[in-house]
Amino acid sequence: MAVSGTNSRRPPALLDVPLLDRPPGTAAPGNQAARVHAALREAILGGRLMAGARLPASRTLSQQLGVSRNAVVAAFEALQGDGLVQARVGAGTYVATRLPARAVAVPALRKAASKAPAAPPRPPQQPFALGVPAVDKLLLQRLAGALRRQVTRAEVDALGYGDPRGSEALRQQLAAHLAASRGIVCEADSLLITSGVQQALRLCAQALLQPGDGVWVEDPGYPVARRTLAAAGLKLRPVPVDAEGIDVAAGLRRHRAARAAYVTPSHQFPMGVTMSMARRLALLEWAREHQAWVLEDDYDSEFRYAGPPLTALAGIDGPERVIYIGTFSKTLFPSLRLAYLVLPAAARERVIAARANFDRFGPRLLEDAVATLLADGNFAAHLRRARKQCLAARDRLAATLQHAAGNALRVERPTQGLHLLATLPAGLPADAGARIREAAGVHAVLLSETRLVPRSGEAFVLGFSGHALPAVEAAAQALGRAARQYLAQQPRRSGRRAMPVR
Amino acid sequence: MAVSGTNSRRPPALLDVPLLDRPPGTAAPGNQAARVHAALREAILGGRLMAGARLPASRTLSQQLGVSRNAVVAAFEALQGDGLVQARVGAGTYVATRLPARAVAVPALRKAASKAPAAPPRPPQQPFALGVPAVDKLLLQRLAGALRRQVTRAEVDALGYGDPRGSEALRQQLAAHLAASRGIVCEADSLLITSGVQQALRLCAQALLQPGDGVWVEDPGYPVARRTLAAAGLKLRPVPVDAEGIDVAAGLRRHRAARAAYVTPSHQFPMGVTMSMARRLALLEWAREHQAWVLEDDYDSEFRYAGPPLTALAGIDGPERVIYIGTFSKTLFPSLRLAYLVLPAAARERVIAARANFDRFGPRLLEDAVATLLADGNFAAHLRRARKQCLAARDRLAATLQHAAGNALRVERPTQGLHLLATLPAGLPADAGARIREAAGVHAVLLSETRLVPRSGEAFVLGFSGHALPAVEAAAQALGRAARQYLAQQPRRSGRRAMPVR
Repeated sequence: MAVSGTNSRRPPALLDVPLLDRPPGTAAPGNQAARVHAALREAILGGRLMAGARLPASRTLSQQLGVSRNAVVAAFEALQGDGLVQARVGAGTYVATRLPARAVAVPALRKAASKAPAAPPRPPQQPFALGVPAVDKLLLQRLAGALRRQVTRAEVDALGYGDPRGSEALRQQLAAHLAASRGIVCEADSLLITSGVQQALRLCAQALLQPGDGVWVEDPGYPVARRTLAAAGLKLRPVPVDAEGIDVAAGLRRHRAARAAYVTPSHQFPMGVTMSMARRLALLEWAREHQAWVLEDDYDSEFRYAGPPLTALAGIDGPERVIYIGTFSKTLFPSLRLAYLVLPAAARERVIAARANFDRFGPRLLEDAVATLLADGNFAAHLRRARKQCLAARDRLAATLQHAAGNALRVERPTQGLHLLATLPAGLPADAGARIREAAGVHAVLLSETRLVPRSGEAFVLGFSGHALPAVEAAAQALGRAARQYLAQQPRRSGRRAMPVR
Repeated sequence: MAVSGTNSRRPPALLDVPLLDRPPGTAAPGNQAARVHAALREAILGGRLMAGARLPASRTLSQQLGVSRNAVVAAFEALQGDGLVQARVGAGTYVATRLPARAVAVPALRKAASKAPAAPPRPPQQPFALGVPAVDKLLLQRLAGALRRQVTRAEVDALGYGDPRGSEALRQQLAAHLAASRGIVCEADSLLITSGVQQALRLCAQALLQPGDGVWVEDPGYPVARRTLAAAGLKLRPVPVDAEGIDVAAGLRRHRAARAAYVTPSHQFPMGVTMSMARRLALLEWAREHQAWVLEDDYDSEFRYAGPPLTALAGIDGPERVIYIGTFSKTLFPSLRLAYLVLPAAARERVIAARANFDRFGPRLLEDAVATLLADGNFAAHLRRARKQCLAARDRLAATLQHAAGNALRVERPTQGLHLLATLPAGLPADAGARIREAAGVHAVLLSETRLVPRSGEAFVLGFSGHALPAVEAAAQALGRAARQYLAQQPRRSGRRAMPVR
């Protein structure tokens, strides 16, 4: 190796440094200068180029490596910027001597590329999975067009840092939508757009509650919401659910001191019941007397198949203690990441401040694009199509499952929502649901999996949105048959019938 | 008013209930049934229709109100669903008698539409404002096209619930980008996309630190990051900054027990210095010995005007204790809400879990669209244009300001970033900066406003990205003249010159 200059310490053979081919599995190489720079830096920090060593002249190195001389010069300058080399006037470039001794112990960069752990499992989109969106090509075309217009026309205001409450256009459209469809009279100023129901809950917990505060949760209930509330440091206080919804009297007896209640009044998840007006008023009375907050998750009220949608709690309350949470995850699709809060005056400033300190604000152009879909009727048209599709899926699932299961399952046809409950007869072993599910080879959620306090009675919580009808049908047949077979193998008891689970 | 039926309690004159015209300021009316429903519900809850009162027959009411009879029937059904009315076979529809007495005290819905507080102030986009994006029409067209393709082609996988780490396509592109430009060798699996730098910091605080833990913050430093760290319950430990960046020795003397350090090594905000290699190694040594985390905010490294970008701390570290935070807020625009973390193996699972419990995952289609811009070179082409534009703005601002201010300001031309520092001479009154700013009528941030521990020496922190050149020029002239005039009015002291602030 030809090295010019008179320094007594010869540099190591630089050809040993694999400058131009990277090991498989590491990322794509950058430009020549960056690659030379990276390789030399690694050699210095890894100890292969010792402190005080002289680097070859740039011309020599460029020939050796088959890169341009400019690339080598730029790499040397970058190393100098790093503090790793020093240029001595008229004498060449040397590895810096002032590096702490332990620099040589820094692991070689390449080790960082070691195999990372596998990705966490993604929720399966198999039949019965919950929250699967229907792919509405027409809606996607409209959304794409709306996005194109928002993005191409965007001026600096729409591109810069924005309002923590989110797009004003979307908040105005939502205020109109909520007044017309949910009986909630509010102004755009009391709305806050979030990146999903989870963030909405998290912000409320952060802004309005203290870690350690108790929060009523419906039992059975929505596991994701519970996980979020618990992750925010709240203590979950399970309150049973019956045919009228959450049992407020039981909550008062057991957990009167709770500071909040998380409820799904218009269509309880997973039971599917609607909270009665008496319960609603009792819940609001408790909230007012105890200055507690009611977090109303109205996740699927747009999917109503019979009669107009029921009034939201927030529409009854005024709103004073109710924080209404709506979402586009069901009406459009989950990966849009848009939900919204209607905030009572007493909560407004604190929750807005929490958002500003959390992640500042949301993706403005996306929000504006969705606002145009609400304004021009494309959102409503999509909802009509989606409702029709879901109703057909509900009926196909219910009919197929009931036919296949016979008396082994009592299959409900909910008047709202995107899932139904198929209930096993009472008095079966505790693992009946899991065994039937396994025998059927399907991925249904069990009612018992949504309970905090174990209780007898089992059911399958079956999502019917977004799945191809033939797949739903095949899965329903498998599940129905498996249930029937399981029941046939059980010792006979008198009077066993599929009963409502309460 | 003609009311059929024989019940002794006559209903009140329903024409008093303003069914079909809503008060100004409330949202758009819905369909007929919803409007009738809403008005009757309000009348019942507001006490104007008493418990036990009989409602008029649907035919009568439909004629009175000029709506279809079907709408009235649907409204009655909805009221029944609410639990507010009861139908008695053959005897008509009655307001429910079981309503708790206090229901009448529920405030009328309309009161909820009272004037909400004004929106929080938006950051001004005036000259010198920081973080203002350049509007690159070509880039916006490319982004719009990429979004259109992602949205119209989306299948159920891309629309449903996704990976908490974000789009795999974007993570792969970022891994390649970081290897080529920042010396960070990592795989897509170690990246996590966030909705901004603030969320990135918040997730790290949540996952890796405990409330009450100390965190080193540069002083002067970035106020938004500090606010976020404090909001997460961490204790801010200010560490001074000198010409080599954060003074690690001072941090060790004063706050050795801190659990993390938030730093901007490649271009300190606001001072603009680059952290020296000796400091970098000392910081990493502290982090390894104390099992502390280094949060490296690399907010503007893509805007380098001379020489290749410097190596990131995470590229030196391996990475072991460094969490690298990059953002698209500067390279694209803030309202995109995209930033990213490179997570060392020891932090990975915890931070991913924190994201899953925070807001689950990010807007997939947006992330995928940005990935295509990185893959097809449009991102790099935009960066070249943006860099050129920012360099021109920097030079115009620096030249104009220096010319107008003369000796009253020392104006730096940073080799990186989107802001510059214009420093006042030492020995001026503490309010000199504020007075000059007020006299000039500009909105510059003062260096003193970015300090936690007050210290003498004042400078203006002037953003030069995203502003029209004539506006920047005019503001620079105003600021320069005001500084010169202020200095002229000060009593003479010997040897006053604008000195570097350290």
